[in-house]
Amino acid sequence: MITSLTNPQMRHVSMLQKKAKYRSEHQQFIAEGVRMVMETPKELLIRIYLCESFVPDREMKAWLEGKDVQIVAEKVFRGLSQTQTPQGILAVVRMRTRSVDRLLSGSSFLLLETIQDPGNLGTILRTAEGAGMDGIFMNRTCVDIYNPKVVRSTMGSIYRVPFVYVDDFCGLLKRMKDEGIRLYAAHLKGLDNYYDADLSGRCAFMIGNEANGLSYEVSALASEYVKIPMAGRVESLNAAMAAGILMYEMRRQKSVRDMR
Amino acid sequence: MITSLTNPQMRHVSMLQKKAKYRSEHQQFIAEGVRMVMETPKELLIRIYLCESFVPDREMKAWLEGKDVQIVAEKVFRGLSQTQTPQGILAVVRMRTRSVDRLLSGSSFLLLETIQDPGNLGTILRTAEGAGMDGIFMNRTCVDIYNPKVVRSTMGSIYRVPFVYVDDFCGLLKRMKDEGIRLYAAHLKGLDNYYDADLSGRCAFMIGNEANGLSYEVSALASEYVKIPMAGRVESLNAAMAAGILMYEMRRQKSVRDMR
Repeated sequence: MITSLTNPQMRHVSMLQKKAKYRSEHQQFIAEGVRMVMETPKELLIRIYLCESFVPDREMKAWLEGKDVQIVAEKVFRGLSQTQTPQGILAVVRMRTRSVDRLLSGSSFLLLETIQDPGNLGTILRTAEGAGMDGIFMNRTCVDIYNPKVVRSTMGSIYRVPFVYVDDFCGLLKRMKDEGIRLYAAHLKGLDNYYDADLSGRCAFMIGNEANGLSYEVSALASEYVKIPMAGRVESLNAAMAAGILMYEMRRQKSVRDMR
Repeated sequence: MITSLTNPQMRHVSMLQKKAKYRSEHQQFIAEGVRMVMETPKELLIRIYLCESFVPDREMKAWLEGKDVQIVAEKVFRGLSQTQTPQGILAVVRMRTRSVDRLLSGSSFLLLETIQDPGNLGTILRTAEGAGMDGIFMNRTCVDIYNPKVVRSTMGSIYRVPFVYVDDFCGLLKRMKDEGIRLYAAHLKGLDNYYDADLSGRCAFMIGNEANGLSYEVSALASEYVKIPMAGRVESLNAAMAAGILMYEMRRQKSVRDMR
């Protein structure tokens, strides 16, 4: 049993919890809680840490069989956990690397520019999986998707929705347009309401920063501005909400098209 | 200038920030930040507190003219504020009372059962205003809408979207059905996808608790279960997201209907 926070393994876990740069250098991150750990694909799982007081049920016991499991003293585990009520289990997980090329073989995308709120990014990922999106592209100033808060709020979608951080974001947008993908930016100045635009082909939705929206450079590359109509005095919706409404309208249109 | 947290006014503000019961007894709550305070309807504004270091711009100066404004020492103000970076302005605001009867004169509603996350409730309110909903009904175990976190995350919608807490929630649902309002519950077992249901008439969307969904009693009163289709392995969307997708589909259908 590991009884000290200064144990090298515990220092490694602690750094993975706290430092984006350290995560990136090691290409590893932390999944915490029963559900998140059990949803981790086998080939990505490096090691599991259980709090000494954790009692696995029968399903969990069978699942743990043959895996690299370490027991950690209660007090040490509490020092590692990033949640207020730790469930007593976490795992070190390997990052999966994906290429822009591979993602671009799909037909529906999100383009996220400087999304800063971890909860928003997590909700966007979860909703994107539900809506059946093929890929998510993020610029470098988006919050780190391996931030423990994001990981938790994806509820496992982080393992299933392909995403990639892109250095040359504007270059990617140009390439996507060249490949015939329509880029839609939600904008109050849009002429068409989003549901009047044809979202049933290959397309991408551009979602901007929570406070400032899309930058000038990025929004200038949109194929079309679409408007999410707003009653009352609301100026804009929450970024994740706007993304969700657009993605599900795309899904609706595709389902209507497929019924024809 | 008020220089002590034990000043009776400061104690009043502090209790309004912290205690739902105190807010309810006094029928008052706190709006914090420049935007929230300036969006407060005149007839609800009781008193404004400015931090001594707060420098109002010209617009704000004109707006403050003739209002009851008190200056508060920096240190005291920081003790009152519920935000990490206080903007130096807050207001004591009177609650508005609304009747179920008055809300029911509208045609589009939300029914919220035991929504617990302040951020979710705030986002729901903001999106409901954008979608043009006529009223929000909540059961008594929803989080307090006057909780400072909810108030902030509504970005002013709390002043504009009519809402009411209801003691006999199931009684209200029965009454709504008797009045010909269709009650839609989002449910994985729904037969129709939500976009195949006719949402253009008088209707209400039932949204349940974040972890447990709708209770048996409440969902049993639905007129119809509708499904939000889910790709991948997502079991459910975030409660606010589900509400937003349903409300905006309603809005889309009404706009299509009105074009005919």
